[in-house]
Amino acid sequence: MGVRIVKTENPRIRTTLWATAVDRQFTDHMLVVDYAPEKCWHEARIVPYGPLSIDPASVVLHYAQAVFECLKAFQNSRKGVILFRPDRYLARLNRSAARLCIPSLPEGFALDAIRELVGLEVDWLRRTGAHSLDVLASIIATEPTLGLYPSRNYTFFAILSTAGPSQKEGLSPVSLLVEPDHVRAAKGGLGGVKTPANYAAGLLAAQAARAKGFAEVLWLDAIKHRFVEEVGTMNIFFRIGDELVTPDLDGSILGGIVRECVIHLAREWSICVIERPIGMEELVDAHARGILHEVFGSATPAVICPVSQLSYKGHRLVVNDGAVGGWTRRFYDAITGIQQGSIEDPYGWTTTVAARTAP
Amino acid sequence: MGVRIVKTENPRIRTTLWATAVDRQFTDHMLVVDYAPEKCWHEARIVPYGPLSIDPASVVLHYAQAVFECLKAFQNSRKGVILFRPDRYLARLNRSAARLCIPSLPEGFALDAIRELVGLEVDWLRRTGAHSLDVLASIIATEPTLGLYPSRNYTFFAILSTAGPSQKEGLSPVSLLVEPDHVRAAKGGLGGVKTPANYAAGLLAAQAARAKGFAEVLWLDAIKHRFVEEVGTMNIFFRIGDELVTPDLDGSILGGIVRECVIHLAREWSICVIERPIGMEELVDAHARGILHEVFGSATPAVICPVSQLSYKGHRLVVNDGAVGGWTRRFYDAITGIQQGSIEDPYGWTTTVAARTAP
Repeated sequence: MGVRIVKTENPRIRTTLWATAVDRQFTDHMLVVDYAPEKCWHEARIVPYGPLSIDPASVVLHYAQAVFECLKAFQNSRKGVILFRPDRYLARLNRSAARLCIPSLPEGFALDAIRELVGLEVDWLRRTGAHSLDVLASIIATEPTLGLYPSRNYTFFAILSTAGPSQKEGLSPVSLLVEPDHVRAAKGGLGGVKTPANYAAGLLAAQAARAKGFAEVLWLDAIKHRFVEEVGTMNIFFRIGDELVTPDLDGSILGGIVRECVIHLAREWSICVIERPIGMEELVDAHARGILHEVFGSATPAVICPVSQLSYKGHRLVVNDGAVGGWTRRFYDAITGIQQGSIEDPYGWTTTVAARTAP
Repeated sequence: MGVRIVKTENPRIRTTLWATAVDRQFTDHMLVVDYAPEKCWHEARIVPYGPLSIDPASVVLHYAQAVFECLKAFQNSRKGVILFRPDRYLARLNRSAARLCIPSLPEGFALDAIRELVGLEVDWLRRTGAHSLDVLASIIATEPTLGLYPSRNYTFFAILSTAGPSQKEGLSPVSLLVEPDHVRAAKGGLGGVKTPANYAAGLLAAQAARAKGFAEVLWLDAIKHRFVEEVGTMNIFFRIGDELVTPDLDGSILGGIVRECVIHLAREWSICVIERPIGMEELVDAHARGILHEVFGSATPAVICPVSQLSYKGHRLVVNDGAVGGWTRRFYDAITGIQQGSIEDPYGWTTTVAARTAP
C-alpha cells in the first residue's frame, strides 16, 4: 500500500521558543489511514494537518476504543534524522490493539508511512531548533453506533509535534506523591497496554497532587495499595544498596520502551537489575537505613527523570539529599547520547529517516 | 443561554424495521455546546446531524477524557412525549464529569436544550413507530495537546437514535458468563461513573463470552475475583429466598437509574431489598439449595432483562428453569408501563417534552 501525499498550501509559522509546553507546535502534515472490514487498512495519505471529521456516534467517543503511541524523531549527529526504537513502539501499538479488539496494523507499512511523514517535516526540526519531534500515532474506532461491541471501522493517524529538550536546564529532580486511594489500573484490566482509558483514570489524582506541589503521582497496586506500580507517564526505578530494582510487569503496568533501555544498559554495565514487586514499607525501611540511594523515572518524553522525594502517608522520603544520582545521570547521558548521536548506537535503537524535499 | 436552531435541508429517510441493532437510525439534528475557560459553556446550537470537526490532538482521543449518558424519550399515552428521569441522568453526568476533571454542565440548561432537541425530532418517534428515542449526551475534551492534564476546552453534544422495543418478543432470558480473569474496574478507579474508559476495558471479555454463546459477561470484583459487580451494560439483581439482593455501590459499580427504580419499587411493594456484597460461592450455594429463584439485570436499554443461566468455573446455575420469574416480570411491567403511560407515574419519573413543529 503506497501513501498518497497532498502537501499543504499554507505552511505554519515556526517559532523557536521552548519556555512552556504551550510552545509546542503541531507540524504541517498528518498521516491518515482508514480501516473497513472488507478493505482492511486502505487509503493511506499524508495530508495537511487539520481536524478529523468524526461522527458524533463514533465508538471512540463513548467507549474509548482506541490505542496510541508517542515515539520520537531526533536530529542525530551521526545518522541524520532518526526515529528512536520505532519497531518497539509499533509492536506495542499492536499488542495494545489486540487487547482493545482493534485489528492489527502491518508494522512495516506503518513504519514506512511514519518515516515518510517525518521525512516530509524534517525541516521543522532543523529550522525551529526543536530538540525532537514527538510522533503521536493513534488508532481510533470510528463506527457510528451505540452498540457495545468492537467497532467495524477505524482510523489510524499520526501527527507530529515539536518538542523542547526533555530536561530544559539539565536534569531537574521532581517530587512524587504516593497515591493512597485512587487506582490507575488493576490486574486483568488495561494497565499493561497503551490505551486512552488508563490516562483518564489518573487525571484527578494528578491534579490534586499538583495542587499540593508534587510533579506527579506514584501509583500503587489496586489490591493491597502497597506495591509500587508506575507514575502514569513514567516507569520507576530504585537504587537500593547496589541493586537497581523496578516493578515487574504483572499486567497492570505499562512496559515502557525507555524502561527496556535502562534494563538493557544496566545489564551491559554489570549493574544488578531486578524486576520484582516493591512494597512501600520496603522503601520506607531502605530510606531509614540509608540505602535508598537513587530514584528515577523512565519515559519517552523525559527519558530519565530524577526523583528527589516520595511523600507517603506522612513519610517524606528525601532521596540523595535531593541531588541527581550517579546512576540516574549515567542512564540519562547514555540514552540521550544515542538518540542525539554523541554516542554511537551499538544496539540498533536508531532508525534512519530519509529526508524529502521540504514543501 | 438560548439555543440557536439551524434546521436540516435534507431530512433522512425514516424506516420502520426493528429486526436488528443495525436498523437504528440517528435523527436529523444534534445539539452542540462548547466550553472554553473564559466563556464557560457557550454557543448552544441545534444543527443538522453530521460529523464533528475534531483536532487529531484532542485530549479525548488519546486520554479518553469524556463522560456520557444515554437516556430515553418515549411516546407516553398519558402525557405525550416524555423523557424518563432526565434529572437523574444529568445529575450523574455531572458526578462523572467531576471525577474526570470536566467542568460541570448547568443541569437545567442541559435539560431544556435536550427537550428542545427531542421536541424538534418527535416526528421520528411517531412516523417510524420506534419504541423510543435514545438520547446520547456526551462531553468530550477537545483541547489539542499532548500534555497529560485536564483539557481546557470541551464540547457537549447530544444525538438521538431511534430504538426498537427493549425486548422484541416479550421478555427473553439471557445467559451470562461470570468472568474469572478480566477486570472491568477497581475500587479507586472509574467504575462508579459513566465514562468511556469503563467500556473499553470490557470489550475483549464480552467478545470472548459471545463467541461461547453467552449474551454478556458478569464482572467480579478486582481484588478477590469473588464478589459480583455488574454486567457492564446492566446492574444485577438476585431473588434469593424472599429477599431481593443487589451489590452495594462501593465505588467500582455504576449506580444505574433503572437500578434506583427497582429498589424504589421493591420498597413500595414491601419486598425486602438489600444492597450488600454478594459472593459467587453464596450464589452457588443458594442455587444448590433451590432458593436462587430469579436473576435479572436492570439497565436503560433493556429496562429489565431476565437471566436464565450463570456460568461460573464449571458451575452452570440455571435459574427458574430458564423461565421469566414473577418479580422480574413485575418490575419490567411497572417501569415500562410508567414509561409508556399504561400506568400512571406517581413518582415524577416522566418529564414532558413540548413538541415543536416538524421541520
